[in-house]
Amino acid sequence: MEASALSRIGLAGLAVMGQKLALNVPEKGFQISVYNRTTSKVDETLDRAHREDRPLHSQGLRPLHPTPQIHHHRPLGETSGTSTPSAVSMKPVRRVCFISAWGSPGARKARHGPSLMPGGSFEAYNNIRDILQRVAAHVDDGPCITYIGEGGSGNFVKMVHNGIEYGDMQLISQAYDVLKHVGGVSNAELAEIFDEWNKGELESFLVQITADIFKVKDEYGEGELVDKILDKTGMKGTRKWTIQQAAELLVAALTIAASLDCRYLSGLKEERQEAAKVLKEAGLKDEVQNVGVHVDKKRLIDDVRQALIKNAYQRNPNLASLVVDPEFAREMVQRQAAWRRVVGLAISAGISTPGMCASLSYFDTYRRARLPANLVQAQRDLFGAHAYERIDRPGSFHTEWTKLARQTGAGVGAFNSAAAFCYLFV
Amino acid sequence: MEASALSRIGLAGLAVMGQKLALNVPEKGFQISVYNRTTSKVDETLDRAHREDRPLHSQGLRPLHPTPQIHHHRPLGETSGTSTPSAVSMKPVRRVCFISAWGSPGARKARHGPSLMPGGSFEAYNNIRDILQRVAAHVDDGPCITYIGEGGSGNFVKMVHNGIEYGDMQLISQAYDVLKHVGGVSNAELAEIFDEWNKGELESFLVQITADIFKVKDEYGEGELVDKILDKTGMKGTRKWTIQQAAELLVAALTIAASLDCRYLSGLKEERQEAAKVLKEAGLKDEVQNVGVHVDKKRLIDDVRQALIKNAYQRNPNLASLVVDPEFAREMVQRQAAWRRVVGLAISAGISTPGMCASLSYFDTYRRARLPANLVQAQRDLFGAHAYERIDRPGSFHTEWTKLARQTGAGVGAFNSAAAFCYLFV
Repeated sequence: MEASALSRIGLAGLAVMGQKLALNVPEKGFQISVYNRTTSKVDETLDRAHREDRPLHSQGLRPLHPTPQIHHHRPLGETSGTSTPSAVSMKPVRRVCFISAWGSPGARKARHGPSLMPGGSFEAYNNIRDILQRVAAHVDDGPCITYIGEGGSGNFVKMVHNGIEYGDMQLISQAYDVLKHVGGVSNAELAEIFDEWNKGELESFLVQITADIFKVKDEYGEGELVDKILDKTGMKGTRKWTIQQAAELLVAALTIAASLDCRYLSGLKEERQEAAKVLKEAGLKDEVQNVGVHVDKKRLIDDVRQALIKNAYQRNPNLASLVVDPEFAREMVQRQAAWRRVVGLAISAGISTPGMCASLSYFDTYRRARLPANLVQAQRDLFGAHAYERIDRPGSFHTEWTKLARQTGAGVGAFNSAAAFCYLFV
Repeated sequence: MEASALSRIGLAGLAVMGQKLALNVPEKGFQISVYNRTTSKVDETLDRAHREDRPLHSQGLRPLHPTPQIHHHRPLGETSGTSTPSAVSMKPVRRVCFISAWGSPGARKARHGPSLMPGGSFEAYNNIRDILQRVAAHVDDGPCITYIGEGGSGNFVKMVHNGIEYGDMQLISQAYDVLKHVGGVSNAELAEIFDEWNKGELESFLVQITADIFKVKDEYGEGELVDKILDKTGMKGTRKWTIQQAAELLVAALTIAASLDCRYLSGLKEERQEAAKVLKEAGLKDEVQNVGVHVDKKRLIDDVRQALIKNAYQRNPNLASLVVDPEFAREMVQRQAAWRRVVGLAISAGISTPGMCASLSYFDTYRRARLPANLVQAQRDLFGAHAYERIDRPGSFHTEWTKLARQTGAGVGAFNSAAAFCYLFV
């Protein structure tokens, strides 16, 4: 522990994550000043340090009451030059460094410590880099920390990460659904399958914990606990923001969007039960339908494994898309048959695989030099005079489609469908 | 024309739509005052009325210069009590009635006039209801106008309409893609097919104009114009807002989201060409693959027709979902086999059908009383202690999954993945 009454680092925000980080810093031998808007959280954090009987923690934690001069409304990373009138002695708060921290337990040796994505002032980051490197999880490549950039960019990356994680979780749950309902695979077999996958190219935290989940028995009855869990998924805001931002930036995020929608739908349990009832009355025999072909269980398991494709960004972080990484492209070409078989089988069986479908749609859209978007452009030009471009000559074109098609003078639509809004006043 | 110097109705916003509406009102015998922030638009509208030599128009149009007291920052429908210091004599502006107008040429007899969705003050709407009813398109059921509600609710409905229209257009272009590339259907045949569909249950503006599009010859060369159009789709903001709002309100809008993403991807023409090249080098033979089975063209056409399902809200506007309308449910049950065949065939062929896949995913998710969301809940409880509910007893549960699965004391993840953000300051 530094022998000083002054903390080099402070932390504002003592929810679950902030508390853990606050306790982690003194453990590594540094003093930290902690602040929370609701001041009881500060006491709670100190209590926890005492309760866990780790003297380093309580010595290293310095509570900040009242509010230090960190204004909520100032741009992050720009809160410079204000000295803090806090109850404890502390260096003037010079810069706010906006740091996101999450767990990256996917790397097996990184159980203890977060993966850190600091954003904000680089100067501020540099001043505490040694502390953060000690606090961060460590893997073979070194500490899990990367300075992202100015302002809230660290948080933005964390937000997108959460969106991707949604996608991963959705893909895994669809793999589970297909294996269970098409392949008739038991929970014990599922545990084995996921354990096996975790030894190969699918090795990841999510695959590993999924294997664990299938092993847990139900304490209230027969079988495994996973089957007793209500199928209504909760969620937090960050995934929603990812989709809203993707829409804002015109980025196609099909898998994440599908995953988010799956969560919304899972929340409509009562409506779904009603729909199942109505459709049964309307003649639908089974929720999951007989696919009418013999399913080779071993091949299905292998197909599903191949359909869960790991990313290749490590090879080239500047790729426009994974698809154009030559090695990844070869993998995709090899695996696409299996991928198509799994999705095709699921569609026959009536098992929704929106994540896998969305990923496949992305692949099949992205990889085609020519799409049917020409028809959409023609429609837009017909009803909204939006004009179009041609493949064989430059310029912007407009055609009187209806007139030409019908060889009459009558146009369609005195009012176009892409109408602007206007205000009427009385 | 009313013999008065005072207009009962005013219109602010003279873009494409506003101008058409402004000209439409005097044509029906009412006087209208027109305003635009960029004043040249007012003159342009008046010029247009003169140019088109329709004296009623120019007599009925009263320009408003300068700005009337309609403040941009006030909530719509709440701008009460301000008298307007405008250049022309006019009643005091008492209420702003926020009106959205779009063309609804889907109803064949409604070529001239918009479908109106007024929002804002009901009192204000009521004062000009007779004018709006005359201006609106008319179908057998009467004028196409429905008062939506307070504030900007009319605009909100229009926004959602645009999103749905995106979905429809995407589904049609996917139908075209499958018919063309799997069925080998020519443009002449496509024109016939869509004309035929437009006589049956798929009758709609979009199906009708699509038939027309396939008939137009290319004036610069052989064949039809549709094949020469660049496959990069443009878009306006309202569809993006629909998705952002759906995310905000936790509404699953899979088909609209997929359609929007298709438009983004269509815009990446150069990236797609590069991807096609890389994948060819990686061993992918053809963009569209031989599906390995004999395709019955006639059956494919009929399958695609059945996969384009028309909505049934006219029967019961209070449905939680179309799926629970008994008649619609019967249709879905009858058509689902065809739907699955089309999507399955497209997946085998490598033709992306994100819209159809998304709709099918929605159907297959919504109709199942039990989803694999239980696994996602288990994962979330394992790594984030988010707790879960059970299917067989009330309450909120948390399980030490890893400990139980491994029968050891070691937990996973000192830092959970759903971590909150915190601020570090130095």
